[in-house]
Amino acid sequence: MTTVTALGLRERKKQQTRSQLHRAALTLVLAHGLDQVTVEQIAAQAQVSARTFFNYFPTKDAAIVGANPELPAQVLALFEARPTHEGVLTSLETVFRERLSRLAADPMLRRQRSEVFRRWPALVATAEGTSTGIEQALRTGVARRMAVDLAHDVRPAIYVACATAVVRAALITPGVDLNDALATGFGALRAGLPDEPGASG
Amino acid sequence: MTTVTALGLRERKKQQTRSQLHRAALTLVLAHGLDQVTVEQIAAQAQVSARTFFNYFPTKDAAIVGANPELPAQVLALFEARPTHEGVLTSLETVFRERLSRLAADPMLRRQRSEVFRRWPALVATAEGTSTGIEQALRTGVARRMAVDLAHDVRPAIYVACATAVVRAALITPGVDLNDALATGFGALRAGLPDEPGASG
Repeated sequence: MTTVTALGLRERKKQQTRSQLHRAALTLVLAHGLDQVTVEQIAAQAQVSARTFFNYFPTKDAAIVGANPELPAQVLALFEARPTHEGVLTSLETVFRERLSRLAADPMLRRQRSEVFRRWPALVATAEGTSTGIEQALRTGVARRMAVDLAHDVRPAIYVACATAVVRAALITPGVDLNDALATGFGALRAGLPDEPGASG
Repeated sequence: MTTVTALGLRERKKQQTRSQLHRAALTLVLAHGLDQVTVEQIAAQAQVSARTFFNYFPTKDAAIVGANPELPAQVLALFEARPTHEGVLTSLETVFRERLSRLAADPMLRRQRSEVFRRWPALVATAEGTSTGIEQALRTGVARRMAVDLAHDVRPAIYVACATAVVRAALITPGVDLNDALATGFGALRAGLPDEPGASG
Protein backbone atom coordinates (compact mmCIF):
# COMPACT_ATOMS: atom_id res chain seq x y z
CA MET A 1 0.00 0.00 0.00
CA THR A 2 2.81 2.42 0.90
CA THR A 3 4.48 1.73 -2.46
CA VAL A 4 1.27 2.35 -4.37
CA THR A 5 0.76 5.69 -2.63
CA ALA A 6 4.39 6.67 -3.21
CA LEU A 7 4.11 5.82 -6.91
CA GLY A 8 0.81 7.68 -7.06
CA LEU A 9 2.43 10.77 -5.59
CA ARG A 10 5.44 10.62 -7.91
CA GLU A 11 3.12 10.16 -10.89
CA ARG A 12 0.99 13.11 -9.78
CA LYS A 13 4.09 15.28 -9.33
CA LYS A 14 5.22 14.34 -12.84
CA GLN A 15 1.84 15.24 -14.31
CA GLN A 16 1.94 18.56 -12.48
CA THR A 17 5.36 19.46 -13.89
CA ARG A 18 4.28 18.39 -17.38
CA SER A 19 1.17 20.52 -17.10
CA GLN A 20 3.16 23.54 -15.85
CA LEU A 21 5.56 23.27 -18.79
CA HIS A 22 2.63 23.00 -21.23
CA ARG A 23 0.94 26.08 -19.74
CA ALA A 24 4.18 28.04 -19.67
CA ALA A 25 4.78 27.19 -23.34
CA LEU A 26 1.26 28.27 -24.35
CA THR A 27 1.40 31.52 -22.38
CA LEU A 28 4.84 32.54 -23.66
CA VAL A 29 4.13 31.66 -27.27
CA LEU A 30 0.83 33.55 -27.27
CA ALA A 31 2.53 36.57 -25.68
CA HIS A 32 5.71 36.71 -27.80
CA GLY A 33 5.13 34.58 -30.92
CA LEU A 34 6.16 31.04 -31.83
CA ASP A 35 9.70 31.84 -33.04
CA GLN A 36 10.48 34.25 -30.20
CA VAL A 37 10.24 31.67 -27.42
CA THR A 38 13.00 29.23 -26.43
CA VAL A 39 13.00 26.01 -24.41
CA GLU A 40 15.10 27.82 -21.78
CA GLN A 41 12.42 30.50 -21.35
CA ILE A 42 9.65 27.90 -21.05
CA ALA A 43 11.65 25.95 -18.46
CA ALA A 44 12.41 29.14 -16.49
CA GLN A 45 8.73 30.18 -16.53
CA ALA A 46 7.77 26.73 -15.18
CA GLN A 47 10.61 26.97 -12.61
CA VAL A 48 12.52 23.93 -13.80
CA SER A 49 15.86 23.50 -15.59
CA ALA A 50 16.16 23.06 -19.35
CA ARG A 51 17.45 19.57 -18.60
CA THR A 52 14.24 18.76 -16.73
CA PHE A 53 12.25 20.18 -19.67
CA PHE A 54 13.70 17.46 -21.90
CA ASN A 55 12.58 14.76 -19.46
CA TYR A 56 9.03 15.78 -20.33
CA PHE A 57 9.07 16.99 -23.93
CA PRO A 58 11.48 16.25 -26.79
CA THR A 59 10.93 19.65 -28.47
CA LYS A 60 9.47 23.11 -27.92
CA ASP A 61 6.57 22.26 -30.24
CA ALA A 62 5.76 19.14 -28.21
CA ALA A 63 5.50 21.29 -25.06
CA ILE A 64 3.26 23.81 -26.84
CA VAL A 65 0.76 21.16 -27.95
CA GLY A 66 1.27 19.10 -24.77
CA ALA A 67 2.29 15.96 -26.67
CA ASN A 68 2.90 13.19 -24.16
CA PRO A 69 4.57 10.03 -25.53
CA GLU A 70 3.11 7.99 -22.66
CA LEU A 71 -0.50 8.86 -23.56
CA PRO A 72 -1.22 5.98 -25.98
CA ALA A 73 -0.25 3.38 -23.34
CA GLN A 74 -2.15 5.30 -20.62
CA VAL A 75 -5.31 5.58 -22.70
CA LEU A 76 -5.17 1.88 -23.64
CA ALA A 77 -4.80 1.02 -19.93
CA LEU A 78 -7.91 3.12 -19.17
CA PHE A 79 -9.83 1.24 -21.89
CA GLU A 80 -8.67 -2.17 -20.68
CA ALA A 81 -9.67 -1.29 -17.12
CA ARG A 82 -13.33 -1.02 -18.26
CA PRO A 83 -15.59 -4.06 -17.72
CA THR A 84 -15.40 -6.41 -20.75
CA HIS A 85 -19.20 -6.65 -20.96
CA GLU A 86 -19.49 -2.86 -21.36
CA GLY A 87 -20.38 -1.52 -24.83
CA VAL A 88 -17.36 -0.45 -26.86
CA LEU A 89 -18.79 3.01 -27.44
CA THR A 90 -19.54 3.53 -23.75
CA SER A 91 -16.02 2.45 -22.81
CA LEU A 92 -14.51 4.81 -25.37
CA GLU A 93 -16.70 7.69 -24.20
CA THR A 94 -15.70 7.05 -20.57
CA VAL A 95 -12.01 6.89 -21.49
CA PHE A 96 -12.08 10.16 -23.44
CA ARG A 97 -14.14 11.97 -20.79
CA GLU A 98 -11.61 10.91 -18.18
CA ARG A 99 -8.71 11.99 -20.40
CA LEU A 100 -10.31 15.39 -21.15
CA SER A 101 -11.65 16.08 -17.65
CA ARG A 102 -8.90 18.56 -16.79
CA LEU A 103 -9.36 20.42 -20.06
CA ALA A 104 -13.16 20.44 -19.64
CA ALA A 105 -12.76 22.08 -16.24
CA ASP A 106 -10.32 24.69 -17.52
CA PRO A 107 -11.81 26.97 -20.23
CA MET A 108 -8.70 29.19 -20.11
CA LEU A 109 -6.39 26.30 -21.07
CA ARG A 110 -8.82 25.29 -23.81
CA ARG A 111 -8.93 28.86 -25.18
CA GLN A 112 -5.14 29.09 -25.20
CA ARG A 113 -4.82 25.80 -27.04
CA SER A 114 -7.42 26.77 -29.68
CA GLU A 115 -5.73 30.13 -30.19
CA VAL A 116 -2.32 28.54 -30.67
CA PHE A 117 -3.65 26.06 -33.25
CA ARG A 118 -5.53 28.87 -35.01
CA ARG A 119 -2.44 31.07 -35.24
CA TRP A 120 0.08 28.32 -36.07
CA PRO A 121 -1.83 25.57 -37.93
CA ALA A 122 1.43 23.68 -38.59
CA LEU A 123 1.34 22.67 -34.90
CA VAL A 124 -1.76 20.58 -35.61
CA ALA A 125 0.51 17.95 -37.19
CA THR A 126 2.54 17.72 -33.97
CA ALA A 127 -0.64 17.12 -32.00
CA GLU A 128 -1.88 14.60 -34.60
CA GLY A 129 1.19 12.47 -33.95
CA THR A 130 0.00 11.74 -30.39
CA SER A 131 -3.55 11.33 -31.59
CA THR A 132 -2.46 8.73 -34.17
CA GLY A 133 -0.65 6.80 -31.44
CA ILE A 134 -3.73 6.86 -29.19
CA GLU A 135 -5.92 5.62 -32.04
CA GLN A 136 -3.51 2.77 -32.82
CA ALA A 137 -3.46 1.68 -29.18
CA LEU A 138 -7.26 1.85 -28.85
CA ARG A 139 -7.85 -0.11 -32.07
CA THR A 140 -5.84 -2.95 -30.57
CA GLY A 141 -7.91 -2.76 -27.39
CA VAL A 142 -11.25 -2.69 -29.22
CA ALA A 143 -10.31 -5.56 -31.57
CA ARG A 144 -9.30 -7.63 -28.53
CA ARG A 145 -12.60 -6.82 -26.77
CA MET A 146 -14.58 -7.75 -29.92
CA ALA A 147 -12.33 -10.76 -30.60
CA VAL A 148 -11.87 -9.85 -34.26
CA ASP A 149 -8.87 -9.34 -36.55
CA LEU A 150 -7.97 -5.69 -37.23
CA ALA A 151 -6.76 -6.43 -40.77
CA HIS A 152 -10.04 -8.00 -41.91
CA ASP A 153 -12.75 -6.31 -39.87
CA VAL A 154 -13.27 -2.58 -40.32
CA ARG A 155 -15.42 -2.16 -37.19
CA PRO A 156 -12.74 -1.62 -34.51
CA ALA A 157 -11.21 1.10 -36.70
CA ILE A 158 -14.67 2.65 -37.20
CA TYR A 159 -15.41 2.73 -33.46
CA VAL A 160 -12.08 4.32 -32.63
CA ALA A 161 -12.03 6.75 -35.54
CA CYS A 162 -15.61 7.89 -34.82
CA ALA A 163 -14.95 8.32 -31.10
CA THR A 164 -11.82 10.32 -31.91
CA ALA A 165 -13.84 12.29 -34.47
CA VAL A 166 -16.32 13.35 -31.81
CA VAL A 167 -13.48 14.39 -29.50
CA ARG A 168 -11.83 16.45 -32.26
CA ALA A 169 -15.11 18.09 -33.20
CA ALA A 170 -15.71 19.00 -29.56
CA LEU A 171 -12.20 20.40 -29.14
CA ILE A 172 -12.36 22.67 -32.20
CA THR A 173 -15.74 24.21 -31.38
CA PRO A 174 -14.83 26.91 -28.86
CA GLY A 175 -18.35 28.21 -28.19
CA VAL A 176 -19.74 25.08 -26.55
CA ASP A 177 -19.08 23.37 -23.23
CA LEU A 178 -16.69 20.46 -23.81
CA ASN A 179 -18.76 17.93 -21.87
CA ASP A 180 -21.96 19.01 -23.67
CA ALA A 181 -20.23 18.68 -27.02
CA LEU A 182 -19.00 15.17 -26.12
CA ALA A 183 -22.53 14.20 -25.03
CA THR A 184 -23.97 15.52 -28.34
CA GLY A 185 -21.32 13.69 -30.34
CA PHE A 186 -21.47 10.31 -28.62
CA GLY A 187 -25.28 10.58 -28.59
CA ALA A 188 -25.22 11.07 -32.37
CA LEU A 189 -22.90 8.08 -32.81
CA ARG A 190 -25.30 5.88 -30.82
CA ALA A 191 -28.54 7.12 -32.39
CA GLY A 192 -27.19 7.71 -35.89
CA LEU A 193 -26.39 11.04 -37.49
CA PRO A 194 -29.53 12.61 -39.02
CA ASP A 195 -28.98 12.71 -42.79
CA GLU A 196 -30.81 15.96 -43.54
CA PRO A 197 -29.48 19.28 -44.77
CA GLY A 198 -30.49 21.29 -41.68
CA ALA A 199 -30.80 18.29 -39.40
CA SER A 200 -31.09 18.85 -35.67
CA GLY A 201 -28.56 16.82 -33.67
CA MET B 1 -16.99 24.69 -75.12
CA THR B 2 -13.54 24.44 -76.70
CA THR B 3 -12.01 26.24 -73.71
CA VAL B 4 -13.73 23.94 -71.24
CA THR B 5 -12.47 20.86 -73.09
CA ALA B 6 -8.95 22.29 -73.33
CA LEU B 7 -8.94 23.05 -69.60
CA GLY B 8 -10.35 19.59 -68.95
CA LEU B 9 -7.53 18.03 -70.93
CA ARG B 10 -4.84 20.10 -69.26
CA GLU B 11 -6.30 19.25 -65.85
CA ARG B 12 -6.39 15.57 -66.71
CA LYS B 13 -2.78 15.68 -67.95
CA LYS B 14 -1.77 17.34 -64.67
CA GLN B 15 -3.54 14.67 -62.62
CA GLN B 16 -1.80 11.98 -64.67
CA THR B 17 1.65 13.45 -64.05
CA ARG B 18 0.89 13.87 -60.33
CA SER B 19 -0.27 10.28 -60.14
CA GLN B 20 2.84 9.01 -61.99
CA LEU B 21 5.11 10.88 -59.56
CA HIS B 22 3.18 9.48 -56.58
CA ARG B 23 3.46 5.91 -57.91
CA ALA B 24 7.13 6.33 -58.78
CA ALA B 25 7.82 7.62 -55.24
CA LEU B 26 5.98 4.68 -53.63
CA THR B 27 7.66 2.07 -55.81
CA LEU B 28 11.17 3.44 -55.34
CA VAL B 29 10.84 3.95 -51.58
CA LEU B 30 9.45 0.45 -51.05
CA ALA B 31 12.27 -1.01 -53.16
CA HIS B 32 15.19 0.96 -51.75
CA GLY B 33 14.11 2.49 -48.43
CA LEU B 34 12.94 5.98 -47.51
CA ASP B 35 16.37 7.58 -47.08
CA GLN B 36 17.88 5.96 -50.18
CA VAL B 37 15.57 7.66 -52.67
CA THR B 38 16.00 11.22 -54.02
CA VAL B 39 13.63 13.62 -55.76
CA GLU B 40 15.81 13.29 -58.88
CA GLN B 41 15.30 9.51 -58.95
CA ILE B 42 11.54 9.86 -58.51
CA ALA B 43 11.36 12.45 -61.30
CA ALA B 44 13.48 10.25 -63.59
CA GLN B 45 11.30 7.20 -62.91
CA ALA B 46 8.20 9.26 -63.79
CA GLN B 47 10.01 10.62 -66.88
CA VAL B 48 9.86 14.27 -65.87
CA SER B 49 12.52 16.76 -64.77
CA ALA B 50 13.25 17.54 -61.12
CA ARG B 51 11.96 21.03 -61.87
CA THR B 52 8.62 19.59 -63.00
CA PHE B 53 8.54 17.46 -59.82
CA PHE B 54 8.46 20.64 -57.75
CA ASN B 55 5.47 21.94 -59.70
CA TYR B 56 3.54 19.03 -58.21
CA PHE B 57 5.04 18.34 -54.81
CA PRO B 58 7.02 20.58 -52.44
CA THR B 59 9.00 17.67 -50.92
CA LYS B 60 9.87 14.01 -51.43
CA ASP B 61 7.60 13.06 -48.51
CA ALA B 62 4.66 14.90 -50.12
CA ALA B 63 5.14 12.83 -53.30
CA ILE B 64 5.31 9.59 -51.29
CA VAL B 65 1.99 10.24 -49.51
CA GLY B 66 0.49 11.97 -52.58
CA ALA B 67 -0.26 15.20 -50.69
CA ASN B 68 -1.97 17.59 -53.08
CA PRO B 69 -2.33 21.20 -51.86
CA GLU B 70 -5.27 21.72 -54.23
CA LEU B 71 -7.32 18.91 -52.68
CA PRO B 72 -9.13 20.91 -49.96
CA ALA B 73 -10.50 23.37 -52.55
CA GLN B 74 -11.36 20.53 -54.96
CA VAL B 75 -13.18 18.52 -52.31
CA LEU B 76 -15.12 21.59 -51.17
CA ALA B 77 -16.11 22.25 -54.81
CA LEU B 78 -17.40 18.64 -55.06
CA PHE B 79 -19.46 19.16 -51.88
CA GLU B 80 -20.88 22.47 -53.06
CA ALA B 81 -21.84 20.92 -56.40
CA ARG B 82 -24.24 18.56 -54.55
CA PRO B 83 -27.95 19.54 -54.40
CA THR B 84 -28.60 21.73 -51.33
CA HIS B 85 -31.62 19.62 -50.32
CA GLU B 86 -29.44 16.48 -50.13
CA GLY B 87 -28.62 15.10 -46.68
CA VAL B 88 -25.24 16.23 -45.37
CA LEU B 89 -24.11 12.67 -44.75
CA THR B 90 -25.13 11.55 -48.25
CA SER B 91 -23.28 14.48 -49.81
CA LEU B 92 -20.15 13.71 -47.78
CA GLU B 93 -20.32 10.02 -48.68
CA THR B 94 -20.68 10.89 -52.38
CA VAL B 95 -17.77 13.31 -52.23
CA PHE B 96 -15.44 10.83 -50.52
CA ARG B 97 -16.46 7.96 -52.83
CA GLU B 98 -15.68 10.17 -55.81
CA ARG B 99 -12.36 11.21 -54.31
CA LEU B 100 -11.35 7.62 -53.50
CA SER B 101 -12.68 6.01 -56.70
CA ARG B 102 -9.22 5.67 -58.26
CA LEU B 103 -7.78 4.13 -55.09
CA ALA B 104 -10.79 1.78 -54.74
CA ALA B 105 -10.18 0.51 -58.27
CA ASP B 106 -6.45 0.01 -57.70
CA PRO B 107 -5.67 -2.51 -54.92
CA MET B 108 -1.95 -2.39 -55.81
CA LEU B 109 -1.76 1.36 -55.13
CA ARG B 110 -3.68 0.86 -51.90
CA ARG B 111 -1.32 -1.93 -50.79
CA GLN B 112 1.73 0.18 -51.57
CA ARG B 113 0.35 3.12 -49.59
CA SER B 114 -0.52 0.95 -46.56
CA GLU B 115 2.91 -0.65 -46.64
CA VAL B 116 4.67 2.73 -46.75
CA PHE B 117 2.67 4.07 -43.78
CA ARG B 118 3.27 0.83 -41.88
CA ARG B 119 7.04 0.96 -42.44
CA TRP B 120 7.47 4.71 -41.93
CA PRO B 121 4.70 5.87 -39.55
CA ALA B 122 6.19 9.38 -39.43
CA LEU B 123 4.77 9.87 -42.94
CA VAL B 124 1.26 9.69 -41.48
CA ALA B 125 1.73 13.26 -40.20
CA THR B 126 2.50 14.46 -43.74
CA ALA B 127 -0.72 12.86 -44.98
CA GLU B 128 -2.65 14.29 -42.01
CA GLY B 129 -1.73 17.79 -43.14
CA THR B 130 -3.80 17.41 -46.31
CA SER B 131 -6.53 15.67 -44.39
CA THR B 132 -6.75 18.56 -41.91
CA GLY B 133 -7.10 21.00 -44.82
CA ILE B 134 -9.88 18.92 -46.38
CA GLU B 135 -11.74 18.77 -43.07
CA GLN B 136 -11.46 22.54 -42.59
CA ALA B 137 -12.83 23.17 -46.08
CA LEU B 138 -15.70 20.71 -45.65
CA ARG B 139 -16.69 22.12 -42.24
CA THR B 140 -17.18 25.49 -43.91
CA GLY B 141 -19.30 23.87 -46.63
CA VAL B 142 -21.44 21.88 -44.16
CA ALA B 143 -21.98 24.89 -41.86
CA ARG B 144 -23.09 26.93 -44.90
CA ARG B 145 -25.49 24.17 -46.00
CA MET B 146 -26.92 23.92 -42.46
CA ALA B 147 -26.90 27.71 -42.04
CA VAL B 148 -25.24 27.51 -38.61
CA ASP B 149 -22.17 29.10 -37.01
CA LEU B 150 -19.13 26.83 -36.80
CA ALA B 151 -17.92 28.39 -33.54
CA HIS B 152 -21.16 27.72 -31.65
CA ASP B 153 -22.62 24.58 -33.21
CA VAL B 154 -20.66 21.36 -32.93
CA ARG B 155 -22.70 19.49 -35.58
CA PRO B 156 -20.86 20.50 -38.77
CA ALA B 157 -17.58 19.45 -37.13
CA ILE B 158 -19.17 16.15 -36.05
CA TYR B 159 -20.47 15.37 -39.56
CA VAL B 160 -17.11 16.09 -41.16
CA ALA B 161 -15.00 14.38 -38.49
CA CYS B 162 -17.20 11.25 -38.56
CA ALA B 163 -17.19 11.07 -42.36
CA THR B 164 -13.41 11.44 -42.34
CA ALA B 165 -13.25 8.84 -39.56
CA VAL B 166 -15.04 6.31 -41.74
CA VAL B 167 -12.69 7.06 -44.63
CA ARG B 168 -9.62 6.62 -42.41
CA ALA B 169 -10.95 3.39 -40.94
CA ALA B 170 -11.59 2.04 -44.45
CA LEU B 171 -8.13 3.05 -45.66
CA ILE B 172 -6.25 1.38 -42.82
CA THR B 173 -8.08 -1.96 -43.04
CA PRO B 174 -6.23 -3.71 -45.86
CA GLY B 175 -8.28 -6.94 -45.88
CA VAL B 176 -11.61 -5.42 -47.00
CA ASP B 177 -12.81 -3.89 -50.26
CA LEU B 178 -12.63 -0.10 -49.97
CA ASN B 179 -16.16 0.50 -51.27
CA ASP B 180 -17.59 -2.16 -48.94
CA ALA B 181 -15.76 -0.62 -45.98
CA LEU B 182 -17.14 2.85 -46.87
CA ALA B 183 -20.65 1.38 -47.15
CA THR B 184 -20.28 -0.30 -43.72
CA GLY B 185 -18.97 2.90 -42.17
CA PHE B 186 -21.49 5.35 -43.57
CA GLY B 187 -24.24 2.82 -42.86
CA ALA B 188 -23.14 2.73 -39.21
CA LEU B 189 -23.08 6.54 -39.05
CA ARG B 190 -26.67 6.67 -40.35
CA ALA B 191 -28.08 3.83 -38.25
CA GLY B 192 -25.99 4.43 -35.14
CA LEU B 193 -23.01 2.40 -33.96
CA PRO B 194 -24.16 -0.62 -31.92
CA ASP B 195 -22.92 -0.12 -28.37
CA GLU B 196 -22.21 -3.74 -27.48
CA PRO B 197 -18.91 -5.47 -26.78
CA GLY B 198 -19.08 -7.86 -29.74
CA ALA B 199 -21.60 -5.82 -31.69
CA SER B 200 -22.21 -6.68 -35.33
CA GLY B 201 -21.97 -3.68 -37.64
